[in-house]
Amino acid sequence: MDQHPILDKINQPSDVAKLSFEECRALADELRDVIVDRVSQNGGHLASSLGVIELTIALLSEFDLSHDQIVWDVGHQAYAYKLLTGRKDQFHTLRQYGGVAGFPKQSESVYDSFGVGHSSTSVSAALGLLRAKKLKGDDGHVVAVIGDGAMTGGMAFEGLNDTGHFSENLTVILNDNQMSIDKNVGGLSRALAELRSSKEYIKVKGRVERFLLAIPLIGRPIARFIMMIKTWFRLFIRRNVPVIFEDLGFQYFGPFDGHNIALLKKKLEISKEINGPVLIHIVTQKGKGYPLAEENPSAYHGVSSFDKEKGVVPSDKMTFTKCFSDSMVRVGQKYENVIAICAAMMTSTGLAEFRKHMKLRFFDVGIAEEHAVTMAAGMATNGFIPVVALYSTFAQRAYDQLLHDVCLQDLHVVLALDRAGIVGADGMTHQGIYDISMMLSMPNVTLLSPCNFAELDRMLEWAVAEGRGLVAVRYPRGGQSESLSEIPAREGIGPRILRDGKDVAILSLGIMAEQALSAAEILEDKGISCRVIDVRCVKPLDMNAWKILLSDVHSIVTIEDGIVHAGFGKYFLSCLEEENLLSTFKHYVTLGVSDRPLVAGSREILLKKEKMDAKSIVETILQFK
Amino acid sequence: MDQHPILDKINQPSDVAKLSFEECRALADELRDVIVDRVSQNGGHLASSLGVIELTIALLSEFDLSHDQIVWDVGHQAYAYKLLTGRKDQFHTLRQYGGVAGFPKQSESVYDSFGVGHSSTSVSAALGLLRAKKLKGDDGHVVAVIGDGAMTGGMAFEGLNDTGHFSENLTVILNDNQMSIDKNVGGLSRALAELRSSKEYIKVKGRVERFLLAIPLIGRPIARFIMMIKTWFRLFIRRNVPVIFEDLGFQYFGPFDGHNIALLKKKLEISKEINGPVLIHIVTQKGKGYPLAEENPSAYHGVSSFDKEKGVVPSDKMTFTKCFSDSMVRVGQKYENVIAICAAMMTSTGLAEFRKHMKLRFFDVGIAEEHAVTMAAGMATNGFIPVVALYSTFAQRAYDQLLHDVCLQDLHVVLALDRAGIVGADGMTHQGIYDISMMLSMPNVTLLSPCNFAELDRMLEWAVAEGRGLVAVRYPRGGQSESLSEIPAREGIGPRILRDGKDVAILSLGIMAEQALSAAEILEDKGISCRVIDVRCVKPLDMNAWKILLSDVHSIVTIEDGIVHAGFGKYFLSCLEEENLLSTFKHYVTLGVSDRPLVAGSREILLKKEKMDAKSIVETILQFK
Repeated sequence: MDQHPILDKINQPSDVAKLSFEECRALADELRDVIVDRVSQNGGHLASSLGVIELTIALLSEFDLSHDQIVWDVGHQAYAYKLLTGRKDQFHTLRQYGGVAGFPKQSESVYDSFGVGHSSTSVSAALGLLRAKKLKGDDGHVVAVIGDGAMTGGMAFEGLNDTGHFSENLTVILNDNQMSIDKNVGGLSRALAELRSSKEYIKVKGRVERFLLAIPLIGRPIARFIMMIKTWFRLFIRRNVPVIFEDLGFQYFGPFDGHNIALLKKKLEISKEINGPVLIHIVTQKGKGYPLAEENPSAYHGVSSFDKEKGVVPSDKMTFTKCFSDSMVRVGQKYENVIAICAAMMTSTGLAEFRKHMKLRFFDVGIAEEHAVTMAAGMATNGFIPVVALYSTFAQRAYDQLLHDVCLQDLHVVLALDRAGIVGADGMTHQGIYDISMMLSMPNVTLLSPCNFAELDRMLEWAVAEGRGLVAVRYPRGGQSESLSEIPAREGIGPRILRDGKDVAILSLGIMAEQALSAAEILEDKGISCRVIDVRCVKPLDMNAWKILLSDVHSIVTIEDGIVHAGFGKYFLSCLEEENLLSTFKHYVTLGVSDRPLVAGSREILLKKEKMDAKSIVETILQFK
Repeated sequence: MDQHPILDKINQPSDVAKLSFEECRALADELRDVIVDRVSQNGGHLASSLGVIELTIALLSEFDLSHDQIVWDVGHQAYAYKLLTGRKDQFHTLRQYGGVAGFPKQSESVYDSFGVGHSSTSVSAALGLLRAKKLKGDDGHVVAVIGDGAMTGGMAFEGLNDTGHFSENLTVILNDNQMSIDKNVGGLSRALAELRSSKEYIKVKGRVERFLLAIPLIGRPIARFIMMIKTWFRLFIRRNVPVIFEDLGFQYFGPFDGHNIALLKKKLEISKEINGPVLIHIVTQKGKGYPLAEENPSAYHGVSSFDKEKGVVPSDKMTFTKCFSDSMVRVGQKYENVIAICAAMMTSTGLAEFRKHMKLRFFDVGIAEEHAVTMAAGMATNGFIPVVALYSTFAQRAYDQLLHDVCLQDLHVVLALDRAGIVGADGMTHQGIYDISMMLSMPNVTLLSPCNFAELDRMLEWAVAEGRGLVAVRYPRGGQSESLSEIPAREGIGPRILRDGKDVAILSLGIMAEQALSAAEILEDKGISCRVIDVRCVKPLDMNAWKILLSDVHSIVTIEDGIVHAGFGKYFLSCLEEENLLSTFKHYVTLGVSDRPLVAGSREILLKKEKMDAKSIVETILQFK
């Protein structure tokens, strides 16, 4: 399909409401076409976005975005929404530097009412938007769209609890696709499954509602009547239908087919008439309309570019994640007290293999990083060594649990921080650039940063076998660079020289060694001799080792893929100062990510922009006199 | 009552199980006596501890702590537990430096199976303990005791969700006293109220259960029968009894009278026989047995020492919290777009007055700091200026929400951080010493630290009227010191000289100015002239102003009541280095809390221990050559 006649007609969101039912159906097809086409080229979150196309059309038909606001939880499902709210002409720049962001973003569009990226924030944010409206006397609606995966995050529960208690006029759409990124877990998911299977309930309820809808004026009296009917159902018809949402004060409607636009519009219309919190439970299919994604939604959750016809070809490229996966199997088999824990990301964090071999020692707790960490602390208390695998950015969720439950008690827990550093196209909300400063602030922490696969493997084993307290190992998205691949793993966690030199020491963290070595090479030609030192351990620092390593250079440059003003370089500076060593160096420069939100873009572009590439290191050092 | 014959007989926890019913009753009275007596002298958490005395006795009667483990959520209710598990002889040192901690603490006793302090961690921790036991083939029981307040924290929901999904053999006791510190809020609380009032349900259910208990062998077949009966209830007897916990996969029992030891023992006995997650809902009275606390449990939640007969006399001593309270009323009346938000601590944070005057603009969201912050971000999006008042230590819970939802979007939210710095007797888990490093790591942040009431008032108004992005104002527990009380409030947020001098600059944060001024006085006599500078704004730093302020001193000492290795002093050091100013100073020393968990103790003792008192400043500076 090369033509998109209906989509072409949508110049503003309100145009969607003007479409006929047939046009809506055609629009859904066109949106699917555009999204599959674009994501196959730029990469992105495909399956989730395909699942909510009908919902997006229904929402824009029923709600007036000049008064109403929609908050998408996580936001990776908002591609259709972006296409229909003024960004179809820029959509080809999706997830590129300076282009359309992969997630809703306030600064990008007035229709992105709240920026998202991390899970389970939508109910809280929407409630805030709504309460503000109410205080201003604005009776616009606010809708939160949240997946069943995100619903396992405790924050969503906190939001529902507050909304329900004060009977706020919020509409929550529970988009139930039975998945987080992997298959969903949690008692709640079982309850939802029961709901989905309660056919008798749906059938009779549907009949009653059809009767109600035949009455011309759908207003409050009718809504009250619906409530009465619902109560009646609870008492006499319903069997095991869970009512968790009603317990929290919501009126529950559903489950409904989330791909039936006409039905969705009707339900949304009713919800607008009801005063008080409403939860509409819709069932959708991740990857809907693109058969390859329907069959294997996990594989099409977040994808790199792929061939539309052939689909995603599983890459056999080695990555840090795969290396971690192999190491965990090896370490888990060697040490019988090792436990693997993830938060709804078994495949993405590389723990599927561990599970295959050591199922009893594997725990997926759902999207619940807080719980994951404290549960791990409990296991550590009783003699196990839990390895909690989280993306760096999501570990931010567990700051207090790491500090209060692990570090203050000095429990031995290993934290595997995947996607630490610059993550690229996922952008601002997903950059793994805060973990270093987070870990630096806590007591009883060891923070390790391997520069290649061999080092990750060795450090993970060290963390398990020799570490104590909280041992965090941070490693980046993607693979190792060719220039670092041959560096052999080393015992212990002390720093080491990767390339010797006598003038300037470049202290590099993890894969930043690539830029450091490359800079040293360039500077060699210019007559400046650089000693590149792989930091390996960010904290604690073995200052005796460092004194020897730095004994004869005149200047120091540190380079790290984290925020620079509260990161390793500044920490190291203060340690040198404490040892009265700082004055022995002519120059001390720290390179890293600046104190501004870091937008989406390729690693190369962002390294350049943040002056963290080899060229910037060279320029920095050339300025030394 | 001066004699405690039953308590005297308890030499180990298992002795409780040997007591007769009458002795148990007498023990409860004795425990009440000891606790009221001790807390009236040392201060502490009275009302919560009095509420669970019968529960504690029942737990120790039914569970064998050599195999079983109990996790107390928050832990301020564990005084009776501490008395019965080996700490009665040290109990007079409660909350004192080197004494019995006010919260369960792993390093204090093998019976404190998990250290607590912050809310809503118990289910996760207990599940970790249990899963570890299971893997080891240890069939000991694990019990989590959690209040209805703590149950509003999302993390508890995450733990229940995971426990229920995998049908783990965990017992959760919901201690429902209808309170957090203030009256409880949330949809859940309403559901619990419904449960409490469903008398018909309880009556019939009780009759059936009594019948069951008469059958000699209480094993799985009976448990299944109980389940069947329960299902039957759900269908035919029950009306509006909420089943939120059953939806999550728990077997629900209750509500029961939490002060009836015999009843509690029976219920706990049954729970041990059931395979899978069990939730026992008990209703207790905060402050039970001490009439003054029964009448006004909020006033007896956390108390300073008081006269047992007369009770707590509301102090008219001015504190930073009261100052904030007054300021919020003033600022709220002046600026109509100011909102006040707290997380279940309306009284403790001083927002009760604001609520009295501007009820519509006040929101208590329950124990849910994550939700509080993101909800605030939503309100800021729609044009209001929310002031979120949290204790510094509890703000740790909202790290990601502050970063991801407020700072990355550059929304204007004010964060009032009460009890920042050393908090004293509450100890390790409650020290407000991590907020500075937390805030330093985030973009778009302004962090202010007033040295007295006048400054707090002015800074709060500045934060609202002139600030942008996230503006955090941190202030300590307690009152202002006499020596600082006369310092007039100043416009803007720049640093200022409190006392001039020409040799050494002492840069002090907030009330640390007291120690700095006192040190300067002492040093004056020794011929060293110190310039004391009140930092006022931790971030961002106006380096031009600082250059002038520091132009003629030869050395710098910074003093802050936060962890020093990732705090203001180190940050300032790095800013000086970036400006190439560091080398102009002979000495640069940072004083603050060390990188170790900071235990309980009076502020005076801890300041001395951490070398943050005037004497330590003097000694530091005297070493300068």
